Amino acid sequence: MGFAPPPVEKLIEAFAKFPGIGKKTAQRMAFHVLKSNNEEAVRLAEAVMDVKSKIINCGMCGGITTDDPCSICSDPNRSDEMLCIIEESSDIYAFEKTNSYRGKYHVLGGVLSPLDGVGPDDLNIDGLMNRVNNNMEVILATNPSVEGEATALYISKLLKEKGIRSSRLARGLPVGGALEYIDEATLVRAIEGRVTL
Amino acid sequence: MGFAPPPVEKLIEAFAKFPGIGKKTAQRMAFHVLKSNNEEAVRLAEAVMDVKSKIINCGMCGGITTDDPCSICSDPNRSDEMLCIIEESSDIYAFEKTNSYRGKYHVLGGVLSPLDGVGPDDLNIDGLMNRVNNNMEVILATNPSVEGEATALYISKLLKEKGIRSSRLARGLPVGGALEYIDEATLVRAIEGRVTL
Repeated sequence: MGFAPPPVEKLIEAFAKFPGIGKKTAQRMAFHVLKSNNEEAVRLAEAVMDVKSKIINCGMCGGITTDDPCSICSDPNRSDEMLCIIEESSDIYAFEKTNSYRGKYHVLGGVLSPLDGVGPDDLNIDGLMNRVNNNMEVILATNPSVEGEATALYISKLLKEKGIRSSRLARGLPVGGALEYIDEATLVRAIEGRVTL
Repeated sequence: MGFAPPPVEKLIEAFAKFPGIGKKTAQRMAFHVLKSNNEEAVRLAEAVMDVKSKIINCGMCGGITTDDPCSICSDPNRSDEMLCIIEESSDIYAFEKTNSYRGKYHVLGGVLSPLDGVGPDDLNIDGLMNRVNNNMEVILATNPSVEGEATALYISKLLKEKGIRSSRLARGLPVGGALEYIDEATLVRAIEGRVTL
C-alpha cells in the first residue's frame, strides 16, 4: 500500500509482522479496527498489553502462566511419573485438547539448531535434568522435523546416562488421511511401526 | 483452546474477531505477541489506539484521513472532472496503486442491501449529489457483486436525472487469468465487451 494515512499504515505494518499474516490480510485487519467501535479497539490494545504484563513462565515446567507454579504443575490429580517434553508452551494445548494425557509437561523453549546458533545451553535442558528421576517415563514430543528429531535424540542420550526411560511419539498415518496423499517418509514409518491385530 | 491462561485466551478471542482470522491463526498471533519484545507489543497497542483516535472521515469524499479535507481532495494536481464512486475507503488504495487514475473519489460507505436494512439514506449519496456537476464524468466503481451492481444502477439513475454522465468499470478477463478457469458470467461479459483490434 503506502497510500493510507500514516496511522493506518503503521497498524498495517504492525499486523504484517505476525507469522502467516500477509500484507493483504494486515490491510483488511487494519480497516477492521477502523470500522469497529472504540471499546473493541481498547479491548484489543489492552489484551496485547495484558499478555505482556501478566504472563510469566512457570519456574517448574517453563510453560506460560499467570501464577508460578502453573495450574498443571500444581495439579495434585496429575501424575508426576509421566513427563512430556515439548518445544513451545503452545504445544501444551495440543496435548490438553486430547483429554487423554494426565502427566506433566516440560517446555524446552525451542530446538537444537546449530545453523541458528541454538545449542543445549539455550534450551531449558538443565531444568529438565534437575526434574527427572528414575520413576518417570519421559515422552520426547518435539516436532517430527529434523531439528525436533535431533533434539529428542540428544535428550534421550542424557536421560539414558541417568537410567531414565524415554519414548518418542509414534509416527504413522494421520487419522482421516488418505494413503494417496501420504508422503513416502511417513509411509515408511507407518510400515515400520505396523501394529499386529 | 480454552486451556491457555486467561490473558492469552482474551487476546486469542480478540484476534479471532478479525475477518479472515481463524482460531488457529489467532492462537499463533497471540503466542507471537507473547514471544515478541515489549516495545513491539507497545507499538501494536498504540497503533490500534492511534487509528481510532487520529483517523477521521474526509468531509468531502468520506475517505479516511488525518486531516480534513484529505490529501487527495485537496490535491490541486488531481482533476475535479472525474469522480470515482467506491464502496469503502480501502478501495481508494486499489486505484491509487495503479498509478493511472488522477481524478477524485467518493466513498459510499457500503452498498444498498435491503436484506441487511441498508437503504439509500444509510450511504453517502446526498454528499455525492451535492458534489457532482455537469462537467464531471462519474465512474461507478462499486464491486461487481449483486449489491454493487444494484447500487451502481440506482446512482446512475439519480445522475441521469441531473444530466450527468456515468460509466461502470469494464467487466472481462482478469489479466494473467486462464480461459479455462473463468466463470461463465465473466466470459459472457468479456464476449459482450469485446474490443476491435
